[in-house]
Amino acid sequence: MDYLTGVRQKETLEIGELLNEAAHGQKVKVNGAVHTIRNMGTTAFVILRKREGLLQCVYEEGTAGFRLKDIKKAAAIEIEGTLEENEKAPGGIEIRMERVKILSEPADERMPLAVSKWKLQTSLEAKLNYRSVSLRNIRERAKFRIQEGLVRAFRDFLYGQGFTEIHTPKIGAKGAEGGANIFKLDYFHHPAVLAQSPQFYKQMMVGVFDRVFETAPVFRAEKHNTKRHLNEYTSLDFEMGYIDGFGDIMAMETGYLKYAMELLSKDYEKELKILGITLPKTERIPAVKFSEIKEAVSEKYGHKMRNPFDLEPEEELLIGQYAKEEWDSDFVFVTHYPSKKRPFYAMDDPEDTRYTLSFDLLFRGMEVTTGGQRIHDYQMLTKKIADRGMTEEGMEAYLDTFKHGMPPHGGLGIGLERLTMKLIGEDDVRETTLFPRDLGRLKP
Amino acid sequence: MDYLTGVRQKETLEIGELLNEAAHGQKVKVNGAVHTIRNMGTTAFVILRKREGLLQCVYEEGTAGFRLKDIKKAAAIEIEGTLEENEKAPGGIEIRMERVKILSEPADERMPLAVSKWKLQTSLEAKLNYRSVSLRNIRERAKFRIQEGLVRAFRDFLYGQGFTEIHTPKIGAKGAEGGANIFKLDYFHHPAVLAQSPQFYKQMMVGVFDRVFETAPVFRAEKHNTKRHLNEYTSLDFEMGYIDGFGDIMAMETGYLKYAMELLSKDYEKELKILGITLPKTERIPAVKFSEIKEAVSEKYGHKMRNPFDLEPEEELLIGQYAKEEWDSDFVFVTHYPSKKRPFYAMDDPEDTRYTLSFDLLFRGMEVTTGGQRIHDYQMLTKKIADRGMTEEGMEAYLDTFKHGMPPHGGLGIGLERLTMKLIGEDDVRETTLFPRDLGRLKP
Repeated sequence: MDYLTGVRQKETLEIGELLNEAAHGQKVKVNGAVHTIRNMGTTAFVILRKREGLLQCVYEEGTAGFRLKDIKKAAAIEIEGTLEENEKAPGGIEIRMERVKILSEPADERMPLAVSKWKLQTSLEAKLNYRSVSLRNIRERAKFRIQEGLVRAFRDFLYGQGFTEIHTPKIGAKGAEGGANIFKLDYFHHPAVLAQSPQFYKQMMVGVFDRVFETAPVFRAEKHNTKRHLNEYTSLDFEMGYIDGFGDIMAMETGYLKYAMELLSKDYEKELKILGITLPKTERIPAVKFSEIKEAVSEKYGHKMRNPFDLEPEEELLIGQYAKEEWDSDFVFVTHYPSKKRPFYAMDDPEDTRYTLSFDLLFRGMEVTTGGQRIHDYQMLTKKIADRGMTEEGMEAYLDTFKHGMPPHGGLGIGLERLTMKLIGEDDVRETTLFPRDLGRLKP
Repeated sequence: MDYLTGVRQKETLEIGELLNEAAHGQKVKVNGAVHTIRNMGTTAFVILRKREGLLQCVYEEGTAGFRLKDIKKAAAIEIEGTLEENEKAPGGIEIRMERVKILSEPADERMPLAVSKWKLQTSLEAKLNYRSVSLRNIRERAKFRIQEGLVRAFRDFLYGQGFTEIHTPKIGAKGAEGGANIFKLDYFHHPAVLAQSPQFYKQMMVGVFDRVFETAPVFRAEKHNTKRHLNEYTSLDFEMGYIDGFGDIMAMETGYLKYAMELLSKDYEKELKILGITLPKTERIPAVKFSEIKEAVSEKYGHKMRNPFDLEPEEELLIGQYAKEEWDSDFVFVTHYPSKKRPFYAMDDPEDTRYTLSFDLLFRGMEVTTGGQRIHDYQMLTKKIADRGMTEEGMEAYLDTFKHGMPPHGGLGIGLERLTMKLIGEDDVRETTLFPRDLGRLKP
């Protein structure tokens, strides 16, 4: 019998420790994957890929107690050597190698992609087919560190605002928000579906915790084949009670975005630099009515409106351009969407019931958030269901919640991959999805 | 056009603000749900349920500018009044009511459950059927705050240990870990399955980020109908590279548990008190070999072993009892499980290949974690697949990862609902699942 007492201190050092805690001339031990080897005859640079970045190790015939050919590209190795200063090396340090221990060797040294190049010059298809290899490229990997920062900021910010995190089921009975765009499955001989959103559950939990959030996958069986659609994505959802209006929701999202940009510039500086990202301003985000901005871009850019009830992707782009030109903002809230295009639970604007107390957030010309105030009154809700010719079947527990009292509330859902994509400046959402699921892609 | 500039300051105060920032005698504004009303004739106590707890409001005929009957149970209301001291009230404060604003009224004042009682005296079935009502009970609600603390601690701790958070797909192609216990669905006319675990993906990402974690739902089509099984649950998963052995994984988990208990005692003190939870000791957790502990409990308690390759629930209970009696520990790592009962990717013990370098963590007599070292060598992995008579089909991308180099690594998966259940002292995992999915329950 042994005892475990907590995280074990390792002899090997990470890059941050080498930079901040180790002295030049000190003997150190490090490990990592052999990213690339530059052989110059009697000396060579062995570049290690570590989780915090690249580390240059210098091999010199004679000094090193091993042969360079003992080290294979893509191997995992442990090195002992001396820490030295070198302005030209990543981080200004390098290790003069003395000993090596091979931890693991690749079965095949020939990599399908040239991941050690600064920019991975290959097609998106190839990147996705060889995902576990392509992400070993430093720039590709950095995208998902930025994505981490966005999720982490979402949770940290909301914890601080009195929200409770929830975990709602992804398998459910048929019914509810329904429609055609829904994955069906057999659940022990009962028809079941995959959740398109945690909408009903998070509303039900507003009556319990006042403010709730969830960061989880959602599933959409939409037959879109575009650069902006995924059939499974990570949704950052929150819902909050006791609001004075849907402006509170937009204000909370603005607070989140400010917090996220601060966290990124503080804790993800390295990745921002690798990707050359300039963070958008979030001090103030303009909010403008759907009908007004539709009119405005039509006038300013001579765009012909085709669908009066929704925004086409081209219109979103023009609104993004308009917001940048007129208000110097990468973000713009578009408010008061037509009731026709919003789900039944959206609260209509009492001043003009053709519109709803709802919004989308556009980021550099693309919708990244949908949100708004919801109906909290049982009678109003059941009336709207009836008016739309919908059935209450499958929504009993949801509706029951309202029967027993609910505060005025609202919330939103943010598409994590889209938010990451627009922040990084990619033009296909698959670029910022670890393992995308689309019409043609079910693996890896 | 308006500008949003961040979170709006509210006039209404939360309980923490009343306790720490407001002065006695001060006029304040609060909102909340009417939890219960105790009418004593000319005076009454109106207890508000707020996200931070209960707040006592005092109604006095004459002083209050409204009639008591204006306030319905389960309504959402906003109150103006004077903050006063009262030792007997929750938190030592109460509000003398002057004005009320009804924010929302229930359609039906008769609640299906007596949620304002301290202990909700009803069946588990009723609690689950009326989930959005039953959780309005203060004790029921507190369980899920504790659950939040456990997930939050997991992420915070791992961020601090250099882990990267990932989001892996829940819909996948057939194959892989497979077996009978898998939900199948139609994915645009292709056969697809729901992920039983993020195992393959997190391993693939170890070659990229070294250390990764995910907190997400997993799906098991197991036909178990027990108090410890769910068909969908939240799995806390991590995987780490460059390990010296599987002890590193157990050490990391011990570190997490220590961190979690500290976070709970610091930030969830109120909920611990409501539920009467004594936190388990985590300073040192015993680890003992599968075959040895099986022998030991058989001897000590006269238990007859039936299955030499696995632990039955009764054996887990006895091991829990043993660990408590012999080592004064609520936790115990059981190590070196038989190879037969572990998946193909588990690393066999080179000293005795009938066993694996793996472990389960038992908490108060129940398995809450499975983990271990994985095979990182391509040849060893494909050989084991062949030896087991398995096919490589559907695992191409997974296996390809190993072909191109992988460090020694391992990881684990923690069942969040079970961990919460054992911490709280519940005896059915559904008690600590927001909306459980089991053989008979697909809604709400």
